[in-house]
Amino acid sequence: MTTLLQNDQFRLAARPVGLPKPSDWNAVNEPVRAIADGEIVVKTLYLSLDPAMRGWMNEGKSYIRPVAIGEVMRAGGVGVVVASKSPKFAVGDHVSGGIGVQTYWVGAADDKTANFYRIDPRVAPLTTWLNTLGMPGMTAYFGLLDVGQPKAGETVVVSGAAGAVGQTVGQVARHLGCRVVGIAGGKDKCDFVVNELGFDACIDYKNGDVREGLKQHCPNGVDVYFDNVGGDILDTVLTRINMKARIVICGAISQYNNTTPVKGPANYLSLLVNRARMEGIVVFDYAPRYKDGVAALAKWMQEGSFKSREDVVKGFDNFPDALLMLFEGKNFGKLVLQVAEA
Amino acid sequence: MTTLLQNDQFRLAARPVGLPKPSDWNAVNEPVRAIADGEIVVKTLYLSLDPAMRGWMNEGKSYIRPVAIGEVMRAGGVGVVVASKSPKFAVGDHVSGGIGVQTYWVGAADDKTANFYRIDPRVAPLTTWLNTLGMPGMTAYFGLLDVGQPKAGETVVVSGAAGAVGQTVGQVARHLGCRVVGIAGGKDKCDFVVNELGFDACIDYKNGDVREGLKQHCPNGVDVYFDNVGGDILDTVLTRINMKARIVICGAISQYNNTTPVKGPANYLSLLVNRARMEGIVVFDYAPRYKDGVAALAKWMQEGSFKSREDVVKGFDNFPDALLMLFEGKNFGKLVLQVAEA
Repeated sequence: MTTLLQNDQFRLAARPVGLPKPSDWNAVNEPVRAIADGEIVVKTLYLSLDPAMRGWMNEGKSYIRPVAIGEVMRAGGVGVVVASKSPKFAVGDHVSGGIGVQTYWVGAADDKTANFYRIDPRVAPLTTWLNTLGMPGMTAYFGLLDVGQPKAGETVVVSGAAGAVGQTVGQVARHLGCRVVGIAGGKDKCDFVVNELGFDACIDYKNGDVREGLKQHCPNGVDVYFDNVGGDILDTVLTRINMKARIVICGAISQYNNTTPVKGPANYLSLLVNRARMEGIVVFDYAPRYKDGVAALAKWMQEGSFKSREDVVKGFDNFPDALLMLFEGKNFGKLVLQVAEA
Repeated sequence: MTTLLQNDQFRLAARPVGLPKPSDWNAVNEPVRAIADGEIVVKTLYLSLDPAMRGWMNEGKSYIRPVAIGEVMRAGGVGVVVASKSPKFAVGDHVSGGIGVQTYWVGAADDKTANFYRIDPRVAPLTTWLNTLGMPGMTAYFGLLDVGQPKAGETVVVSGAAGAVGQTVGQVARHLGCRVVGIAGGKDKCDFVVNELGFDACIDYKNGDVREGLKQHCPNGVDVYFDNVGGDILDTVLTRINMKARIVICGAISQYNNTTPVKGPANYLSLLVNRARMEGIVVFDYAPRYKDGVAALAKWMQEGSFKSREDVVKGFDNFPDALLMLFEGKNFGKLVLQVAEA
């Protein structure tokens, strides 16, 4: 390797109030240092842009420590090993892990934070390893199965249906024999999840009434609701749940950039009336079982009965703007930033 | 029997807005009719006054149909059989069931709505059959065990700690080897649950900061929260829950008389961060197991390790005012209206 490699980075400059602004980032550049025994250099190919990243920018206790001011922004990604002094990875290996928003990652091959693992581009395209076969897919697969516990014939509703997690939730539920109803923003996304992903129906919250849509498309009520959005949509679904319904709290994208307090679900007493349950999930808890999830989803994909849709934005420098697409619902499928040609 | 018996009743005159007003009731009087084969007359001795009654006065779907305008107000109670043409009950039998807010109940001995069952005053005083050995006790016992699932050494917090459900929740948790912290209004109630019921601590929400109280008295966080009140207290407890905590949604007395929308728990995303669960319960689901609950609680009571406290208000005519005591937190223990001398 050469030490002439330049590592471009976005570091957190300030904690955002509301939507992240350009001034919340510091674009910096440092040379890639020489590596010691046990270390590797990973060249970033694709970065995963996720709603959860907004939460990591806040101070305060959460399921993971906040990104510090001045620190490289945390992000998952896939890359290729371009230098290695570790037996764990060889030059040319494709890996997935916590690369961060930078063009190169340098450190110990067994670093616990980055937690790199080898991925196989012959099984699925690299971007799919950030979507269906990555964190969003694992979130969807284990959150739905373990917490949602859907049974064949039940009705499963998922918000953010065309998004990274939602598309997998709906397709897994379809494979289980459930009636699957998505909620998404815009006709294109709704058409996609019905026509391409095989959902039974999709409610366009931007151009229709969610309550009426649920009445129409969930004639037998809602048994499982997988919530990625929170806010008014969660509140509306709460009015349509069945006895013993399960609500999986996976995220609340509608609330992440609030400058006012989070809107709690005013209809939460529907849980009492219906003896229902609302339960939160964090994907990291399922790490020991990821390989099972990947195997199941890859099998369906190889059989042609499961699709993975990514929305790829090109150019490392576009990171700040690309991230905002998530909160404006502009991405169509899992949002990925292409940093370099594979 | 004589047909000269007069049945005094409170019938629902109007659906209340906020706290029930005197004009929401119609006090009427009708003669007790002669009974046919299979029927009985029950003389009301004690009526159970419960927060849930406020919900039954509202229109709209719930876990039980609303009381109709003009109908005798629904209420549980204990009474004595004063006339019987049924082999199921003999004159002199004490029974518990859905008597309604009236001085006599007349109908079929096997009426499914009233659902009378014989109670034994030698096991416990009649009022205790409306408390620990009645619906509140069953709510507490099964809600805590089945949904809260506390384990020895865990911390259980219960709001409305001196109330009907709360007192049993805390004492059952104590018997299970948990650390038990109550939340109640006023020093007297707090002293009572600590000194008489054996709670480890009690937070006086009327004279102190609940957040500080939880910090002080739950040094290891909250594993189970049994919520009878909703509102700000629920929101505050959500900030102190542990990983995999269980929140039992039993009621929300702070919200029942709202004229504005219910306040949803703004901190519900703590469920996500902590992979925690919020689940509603309705006592009727446990009817097939009531006898097990009664046996367990009666055994502890007879051993002297479990107390049942009722707050008895005398006089049928005081029903409207007595009901309001619940929402002002004026009752101290399970609120019971004495209608006649036992």
